[in-house]
Amino acid sequence: MNFTLSQVPDRTAKPREQGITMVMDKGLSPREIEDMLSISTPYIDIVKLGWATSFVTPNLDEKLAVYRSAQIPVYFGGTLFEAFVVRNQFDDYRRLLDRYGLQYAEVSDGSMDMPQDVKCEYIRTLAQQVTVLSEVGSKDEEKIIPPYKWIQLMQSELDAGAWKVIGEAREAGNVGLFRASGEVRQGLVEEILTQIPFDKILWEAPQKAQQVWFVKLLGANVNLGNIAPNELIPLETIRLGLRGDTFTHFLDQDTIQEWKMTPKK
Amino acid sequence: MNFTLSQVPDRTAKPREQGITMVMDKGLSPREIEDMLSISTPYIDIVKLGWATSFVTPNLDEKLAVYRSAQIPVYFGGTLFEAFVVRNQFDDYRRLLDRYGLQYAEVSDGSMDMPQDVKCEYIRTLAQQVTVLSEVGSKDEEKIIPPYKWIQLMQSELDAGAWKVIGEAREAGNVGLFRASGEVRQGLVEEILTQIPFDKILWEAPQKAQQVWFVKLLGANVNLGNIAPNELIPLETIRLGLRGDTFTHFLDQDTIQEWKMTPKK
Amino acid sequence: MNFTLSQVPDRTAKPREQGITMVMDKGLSPREIEDMLSISTPYIDIVKLGWATSFVTPNLDEKLAVYRSAQIPVYFGGTLFEAFVVRNQFDDYRRLLDRYGLQYAEVSDGSMDMPQDVKCEYIRTLAQQVTVLSEVGSKDEEKIIPPYKWIQLMQSELDAGAWKVIGEAREAGNVGLFRASGEVRQGLVEEILTQIPFDKILWEAPQKAQQVWFVKLLGANVNLGNIAPNELIPLETIRLGLRGDTFTHFLDQDTIQEWKMTPKK
Repeated sequence: MNFTLSQVPDRTAKPREQGITMVMDKGLSPREIEDMLSISTPYIDIVKLGWATSFVTPNLDEKLAVYRSAQIPVYFGGTLFEAFVVRNQFDDYRRLLDRYGLQYAEVSDGSMDMPQDVKCEYIRTLAQQVTVLSEVGSKDEEKIIPPYKWIQLMQSELDAGAWKVIGEAREAGNVGLFRASGEVRQGLVEEILTQIPFDKILWEAPQKAQQVWFVKLLGANVNLGNIAPNELIPLETIRLGLRGDTFTHFLDQDTIQEWKMTPKK
Repeated sequence: MNFTLSQVPDRTAKPREQGITMVMDKGLSPREIEDMLSISTPYIDIVKLGWATSFVTPNLDEKLAVYRSAQIPVYFGGTLFEAFVVRNQFDDYRRLLDRYGLQYAEVSDGSMDMPQDVKCEYIRTLAQQVTVLSEVGSKDEEKIIPPYKWIQLMQSELDAGAWKVIGEAREAGNVGLFRASGEVRQGLVEEILTQIPFDKILWEAPQKAQQVWFVKLLGANVNLGNIAPNELIPLETIRLGLRGDTFTHFLDQDTIQEWKMTPKK
Repeated sequence: MNFTLSQVPDRTAKPREQGITMVMDKGLSPREIEDMLSISTPYIDIVKLGWATSFVTPNLDEKLAVYRSAQIPVYFGGTLFEAFVVRNQFDDYRRLLDRYGLQYAEVSDGSMDMPQDVKCEYIRTLAQQVTVLSEVGSKDEEKIIPPYKWIQLMQSELDAGAWKVIGEAREAGNVGLFRASGEVRQGLVEEILTQIPFDKILWEAPQKAQQVWFVKLLGANVNLGNIAPNELIPLETIRLGLRGDTFTHFLDQDTIQEWKMTPKK
């Protein structure tokens, strides 16, 4: 940090198990990646090349090399995994991970119907090859999964070998954990957390209001994902109580009383 | 493409008459153009320097040179044409196109009232000098043009020499083809297509939901415009059925039945 | 300007007292700053490093050096000032301004409760060290300040030594001067202007509709702030009547009658 301020929460350091920030790269050029890294490297834990954007990226090898040189792990979005699976090309997908030297992969069923035991089998198989992130929740606004089912799915996917489970939100943050309006389904999140350890979950939270909500509920070191490259610095200030939205959240009672402030809910 | 996947629609190759992507550059720096080109050149058919942004761009020559070296055609937004016409400076406008060595120009009447015969005369005159794109539809939310009139306007502008007609949407996608909410005026589009060949129309579709809607109705190789630079890679995945929104659209029936999927509407 | 057009309003030149554009930098990398400057330097009067983003910026010195070399003044967002004040570290804040060689600072009370006399005392103290911008209005949607109070606050802060007073809008433009919907509180602005000289106020107007509204009410040379880097070129066209939204605003009556146009409200 550049300045010394009291009452700022501690942040974990890389490599993190808590306080992870996952970036959504939906088509950065190699030089734009360098730009992002030049200012945000300490705050980037892992990068997702969104959905199947890697399929149409002409300079994919070059992009991966830039991330590799900064020691930032990268994985392909779950929709690419699904695109191979739905076409019965799973073996091709495994070869492709090797060809690009990837250490991480995502297993998801956001765009297709996949029986849970089939999904867990994919997790088990891939977990022998790479570190697996497994995504729970549909990209379809109309598929509402009840809380007990979210818990069951998350638990069985962790048991099958997933390193983290991801709560689905899409790039726009309007499905899965969120209502179509972008509002967090609060009861759902609280119920999940009664059963699944909070450091095993990576919450997709692309919108600022969602990031604020998770930091207020779970603290500076909550795992958050689908963060846009130009929101990395802003997110870090939200985590530290240094943006208006979380300004009073980490202040002690004496400070609040001294200034007669009404802390924000 | 980096990987081999079955059931992915064929895309046309440059120079395209169908499947065109027109980019909206509303103030990129020369190096930002290089960044965009380094990752998206195969997917960029033509670039519009939005409205009259070229008027206030200090390094316009340098920008045009970057596009020229990548053999990407560029044109000035229709609002610049209108700004000259409304001031009775049309001859200045023609000289300006020559001075900057432009091969394309847009004729529009989105910000001013222009009798249709006057507009067609401008198209005829400019078509002797450059390739003309002609825009139909008002930037004014309150001007509703009925479908038969859209068809009549488009036909007469093609007859006057326009290479393509553009369906107006503005940068934000909330007028013309779209309701103020951004929703597509579906009946309008379908009626237009009964009379005007689909490869003669370039649909402005800046929002993702609009791009998805056109790809589902008209296929991977629909002409789309006003695409933001950082949405070029995402749009290409939408065209190919490799984003959640169009994931099932290009899959064959056997695949869909094998996975018991309900294709999205 | 690249082309010669009649009926385009005169713009003031740097250093400006009227027609100021203040940019919101919420985490640009040094090279992204260079990109912005390469195309927008004539239109940038002053840059704010948004809220406390400077706290978490690893290469802050390098960023400041890029701005310095382009002779663009920079200041830290008011939330950083408040973060020091609320922790009783105001003296640290003053030292920090010196350490980074800053010539400007913002005093605000958007995230904390601060008696007006205390705020004015901070302005008086800082005004001996730097040029002070003072922000009026809360970041809290629920705190509605009546117009007479806005005027009183602005006047007393100018009297205390502020160079300009800033009308608060946040990054998203949904509080203070604006309703939660982003709509301008028009009566408020008009009443303020009966008492406070318009060149002493810098209006935060991050959304396009807000920029258009201020230009139509107050002309090309209104002071506007919280402008995103990629909206600088677009804003300049709005100021000059060269975007659809302000296209008819600066045209003379003869032109409007010649084309039988209905000027936009």
